Amino acid sequence: MTNVLIFGRFRRLLLMFVALLVSGGVPALALAQDEAAVTDASVEETAPAEEGGEEEAEAADLGVGYALDNTFLFIAAVMVFFMQAGFAMVEAGFNAQKNAVNILFKNSMDICVGVLLYFFIGFGLMYGANYAGVEDPSLYFVFGGVGIEGYSDGTFSPEVAWLFQAVFAATAATIVSGAVAGRMKVVGYLLYSAVLTGLVYPISGYWKWGGGWLAEMGFQDFAGSAVVHGVGGFAGLAGALVLGPRIGRYVNGKSMPMPGHSLPIAALGVFILWFGWYGFNPGSQLAFQGTGDINSAMHCAVTTTLAAAAGGLVATIVSWFVFGKPDLSMGLNGILGGLVGITACCDCMSDMQAVLVGAVAGLLIVGGVLLLDKLKIDDPVGAFPVHGLCGVWGCMAIGILPNDYLTNGDTTFMTQLIGTVTICAWAFATMFGLFAVLKAAGILRVSPEEEQTGLDISEHGMHAYPAEGLSRAS
Amino acid sequence: MTNVLIFGRFRRLLLMFVALLVSGGVPALALAQDEAAVTDASVEETAPAEEGGEEEAEAADLGVGYALDNTFLFIAAVMVFFMQAGFAMVEAGFNAQKNAVNILFKNSMDICVGVLLYFFIGFGLMYGANYAGVEDPSLYFVFGGVGIEGYSDGTFSPEVAWLFQAVFAATAATIVSGAVAGRMKVVGYLLYSAVLTGLVYPISGYWKWGGGWLAEMGFQDFAGSAVVHGVGGFAGLAGALVLGPRIGRYVNGKSMPMPGHSLPIAALGVFILWFGWYGFNPGSQLAFQGTGDINSAMHCAVTTTLAAAAGGLVATIVSWFVFGKPDLSMGLNGILGGLVGITACCDCMSDMQAVLVGAVAGLLIVGGVLLLDKLKIDDPVGAFPVHGLCGVWGCMAIGILPNDYLTNGDTTFMTQLIGTVTICAWAFATMFGLFAVLKAAGILRVSPEEEQTGLDISEHGMHAYPAEGLSRAS
Amino acid sequence: MTNVLIFGRFRRLLLMFVALLVSGGVPALALAQDEAAVTDASVEETAPAEEGGEEEAEAADLGVGYALDNTFLFIAAVMVFFMQAGFAMVEAGFNAQKNAVNILFKNSMDICVGVLLYFFIGFGLMYGANYAGVEDPSLYFVFGGVGIEGYSDGTFSPEVAWLFQAVFAATAATIVSGAVAGRMKVVGYLLYSAVLTGLVYPISGYWKWGGGWLAEMGFQDFAGSAVVHGVGGFAGLAGALVLGPRIGRYVNGKSMPMPGHSLPIAALGVFILWFGWYGFNPGSQLAFQGTGDINSAMHCAVTTTLAAAAGGLVATIVSWFVFGKPDLSMGLNGILGGLVGITACCDCMSDMQAVLVGAVAGLLIVGGVLLLDKLKIDDPVGAFPVHGLCGVWGCMAIGILPNDYLTNGDTTFMTQLIGTVTICAWAFATMFGLFAVLKAAGILRVSPEEEQTGLDISEHGMHAYPAEGLSRAS
Repeated sequence: MTNVLIFGRFRRLLLMFVALLVSGGVPALALAQDEAAVTDASVEETAPAEEGGEEEAEAADLGVGYALDNTFLFIAAVMVFFMQAGFAMVEAGFNAQKNAVNILFKNSMDICVGVLLYFFIGFGLMYGANYAGVEDPSLYFVFGGVGIEGYSDGTFSPEVAWLFQAVFAATAATIVSGAVAGRMKVVGYLLYSAVLTGLVYPISGYWKWGGGWLAEMGFQDFAGSAVVHGVGGFAGLAGALVLGPRIGRYVNGKSMPMPGHSLPIAALGVFILWFGWYGFNPGSQLAFQGTGDINSAMHCAVTTTLAAAAGGLVATIVSWFVFGKPDLSMGLNGILGGLVGITACCDCMSDMQAVLVGAVAGLLIVGGVLLLDKLKIDDPVGAFPVHGLCGVWGCMAIGILPNDYLTNGDTTFMTQLIGTVTICAWAFATMFGLFAVLKAAGILRVSPEEEQTGLDISEHGMHAYPAEGLSRAS
Repeated sequence: MTNVLIFGRFRRLLLMFVALLVSGGVPALALAQDEAAVTDASVEETAPAEEGGEEEAEAADLGVGYALDNTFLFIAAVMVFFMQAGFAMVEAGFNAQKNAVNILFKNSMDICVGVLLYFFIGFGLMYGANYAGVEDPSLYFVFGGVGIEGYSDGTFSPEVAWLFQAVFAATAATIVSGAVAGRMKVVGYLLYSAVLTGLVYPISGYWKWGGGWLAEMGFQDFAGSAVVHGVGGFAGLAGALVLGPRIGRYVNGKSMPMPGHSLPIAALGVFILWFGWYGFNPGSQLAFQGTGDINSAMHCAVTTTLAAAAGGLVATIVSWFVFGKPDLSMGLNGILGGLVGITACCDCMSDMQAVLVGAVAGLLIVGGVLLLDKLKIDDPVGAFPVHGLCGVWGCMAIGILPNDYLTNGDTTFMTQLIGTVTICAWAFATMFGLFAVLKAAGILRVSPEEEQTGLDISEHGMHAYPAEGLSRAS
Repeated sequence: MTNVLIFGRFRRLLLMFVALLVSGGVPALALAQDEAAVTDASVEETAPAEEGGEEEAEAADLGVGYALDNTFLFIAAVMVFFMQAGFAMVEAGFNAQKNAVNILFKNSMDICVGVLLYFFIGFGLMYGANYAGVEDPSLYFVFGGVGIEGYSDGTFSPEVAWLFQAVFAATAATIVSGAVAGRMKVVGYLLYSAVLTGLVYPISGYWKWGGGWLAEMGFQDFAGSAVVHGVGGFAGLAGALVLGPRIGRYVNGKSMPMPGHSLPIAALGVFILWFGWYGFNPGSQLAFQGTGDINSAMHCAVTTTLAAAAGGLVATIVSWFVFGKPDLSMGLNGILGGLVGITACCDCMSDMQAVLVGAVAGLLIVGGVLLLDKLKIDDPVGAFPVHGLCGVWGCMAIGILPNDYLTNGDTTFMTQLIGTVTICAWAFATMFGLFAVLKAAGILRVSPEEEQTGLDISEHGMHAYPAEGLSRAS
């Protein structure tokens, strides 16, 4: 595909945007006037053979293996998409009732804003270099994920490749909403979400998964303990630090627990997340028709299962010792910690090592929650222990525990340390900066009165559980 | 398969029914007496080669591609099935607590009644003509979805084909329960549900998907913006009109908002629906082993994603302007509107056009809710704007925006207009008639006292959230 | 794979365990010292060709069919995993609010403990004999599910085979938590759960699915009406009997209904379970690339659907007659009963027979609930009628209704009776014994004060829906 076609697409896009913004309702007419260009494009899409000669003709007959590869990745992407529901339930459940609408709003907008930003900018930034047709890097981040229609390298439909990556980006974004819950303005949050999915995540993602310097160095992070969860967890820590704790969370130097409002939906959310992780980790194998590939994907499914179970069990047992009673929320977060931990290394750890990775993650959850409490950092749902600490642990486990990468590759303890620290520091620094700017601009934190009323009423004018005729406008 | 076999099935069925109804518990004995006939049938099922010679022998070795086709359609069907949970949560969440049990009851019976009716009658009506063995049309709607066991045309197991269509029928039915919530009798609702899934939906479905006159004319509706959602949305409008508004919804000409009782489960429902839509739309490709087919299915997944995101974002922004605050329920309905809109055209719109289709759907949601309010029509969950208006928009977008069908086929603005109007008018007229008959028969609307008590107690004798030992019989 | 390798694994495991227990935090160092052994193992995993010559070389090229088989089983396993969320929601919703945290805790620990125990012991007990490399039966139950890494018989990755079986084991375990809800100590429950998933379920499972005496006799139970649900249901009955009813459930010989606290999440749970059953039943076909196999799996999907629908409808209608109002909880349990009933015979019943199987299950639900009430047995969620009675019915239906097994095989009414009774009696007797031992040890039932306070506070120190700053430690 040549630049000419890309500029054709550019012209079509501009016309569409202009029509959308100016005429405000009848963009179709403007588009119809551009019919010639569009028709060219559609012909190209439906009859690729006219364009590329041999390689395109080959594309028309990639066999059942190609179909299976795409089917598996599609299903994995859909599972990862469903994790949005899991995050929404976990975060709403672990937060106060008066902020539940706000949490749900942020989670549902995360995915809406996230996929659009990742479509228009993020995917091109992160993977544009991988698509041979796009020669001018300045075009990567311009339109439509480098124009994902019409490309094919014979392994995946670029469309499902985009979808799989887009839901990963949305996952990184939505992690933060838990850490900043109960005190952040909607406008500030939407800006944060756009910057993370459009810029910050794709750039560090490019370093590893797009073939950048971390990949070349030998840094390993199979499904994103650092690339996805570390980014979300450290961005969340930055948000929690800049925002400061919720009113009443630390009083006279004492920590005052502020439990969530619905453990049933929080538990449901954890089950949904575990379910979705079977797309997140096995799907990251990114090849499913070969015997070795499918065996590896199945191995990832088992290590994921064992790490989650060990994380949940160890966090439960440890919290039982520490707090005197078995703590459901610790157990649930332990499951999530185990899942985050194994994410980097689900492919290269043995089943037994997966139990160990999960068990350590379970310890980190309890330790991390206690540590944040000691440091008087308010992370309402434990997003930093789960995604930040266990994300770091997952990548470092590759540098510590014996595995294929250490034995045969360029990967060492140092590559893992450098990669992990770099990615987490990048997310922390950029997001700390952004949150500071938002604070300076006065669009970060709600007023104390609004916070005590609850964001549902102050920001949205709605109750999560309206008992009697409360209007949406009141 | 000949009529003889069908009559053999007929006899077996009659015996089974008679045994079931008369002896009331030991139908197995009657069946055992009919063993010869049954054994014949089972032999035919398990050893197809004995029957059909060459074409059946071929059926025994259709290759991995056949297995993959069936696997994909099966998974898509299961995802669409899960949309029932989504509808149940959305409708329960957006309605009053005192009617939650009733909503859940209607949703769970929709799928039970729906699949049985669609099995015994609907599938034969809608697709019987496609099964060559059934030569006498009068048999289409008699038994067991034209006897889906034992057939094969080499593309799909007829069983998974039935399952995929059955969950679509149940989707059309369950849309209505939201529009008529809070005031309709259970008996009347069950009759409506049976008529819709057994007759009304299959007949208009036949016009398009069964190869009827709308298909011949060139009318396009890929996954059912009109065929499924339009039918449900306009049937819901008919129900809302015949029933009239809930008591207290419009007082002295003023609209009194009656918010739902649980936004968390409503939001969960929307995420489940979005998840299920990845079965609804990509699954409607109905062929997954060829490179072009799987690429098209993946394209549908991306356009579906982008339209949902654009719908959610635009509805949020517009409602923010209109109501002064970002309205979660509008955002959620905007997501659903985007999904409904892209359903007809997820295959033929470009990714950019999908953003446009979703954005317009987002506008229609806010506009539609305001319009119903102005017209004093009470549609508690916004079923008509979501499924009716956006359903129409999805089909008409094919007639308006440049796309493959317009360029190369018989499809025009007029075919889309005729098809869309016909299907929606058919659903509206037949259902308006049915609801009017139910009203005349006194089994449509509960009494004002029952309505104010809530349908949970008046119709079911149960609370959705019983705090203290309330008995089911009290 | 020889015993040498297994003992290598043994040594590695011992070192890991010792490191984990003694050094309590740096097991990685000990592991690193064992690097040689581990490296051997990893080499064996990633380069199988070095080991086995021809058969391994063949394993490296099993084709797309192998990949599809594994893909389908993986997806089925993930669906079955998700049933854990369904059980958690059903059981929490059908129980009192004051015990909701406890239910959620038990359900989330069931899966954590379950997969670990089934990994270390259960799988080897149940299927170890099927893995040719494990010659010494004393090793079956020692480690890592007979070492599921590195094996292959060319049909499935042993890892996904383990995963599929592990989530079945967890299903059997979690059924019980509903029957013993509201009065059982956490410690006792965890012991029960470990014994069931580690020993009781695998042993009876071996009799049928591991190739034991019930399999040789001709006993049929396709996906586990008895092997899974019967075990869970009768274990639950044993628990309910040994524990005795909740305080206030039967007063002066009168039954006092104690309804659950949230029908919306109970209904959600039923939809999730139905969804998951599409993995449970069709997945049990255990072969998906051949035309006959995939057709059979699709048939299972349809019979599962029809039985669920018939069960839900019949239970609703019957309860309507009996109680005077349509009872949502009966309808929901009727759906589950239909699903349990068809589980044994979804492969061998015709579609029409599936309707019959489901309808009878619907009757059994209503009858079973009334029967338990009459016998003054307190089974808070109806686990015994759903899983016990309908589990028995599903297996016996094969012995009663005409089907392929009866016509062509060793299967008779007597084989079904013997198998069903044996499995259910085994589960009932062993679990009755275990619960009696726990009772004698004083770790079975909480005190009356704790019970009336609710297990959430007494056992966990948490509320399910904390309205105001209740601390986890208070």
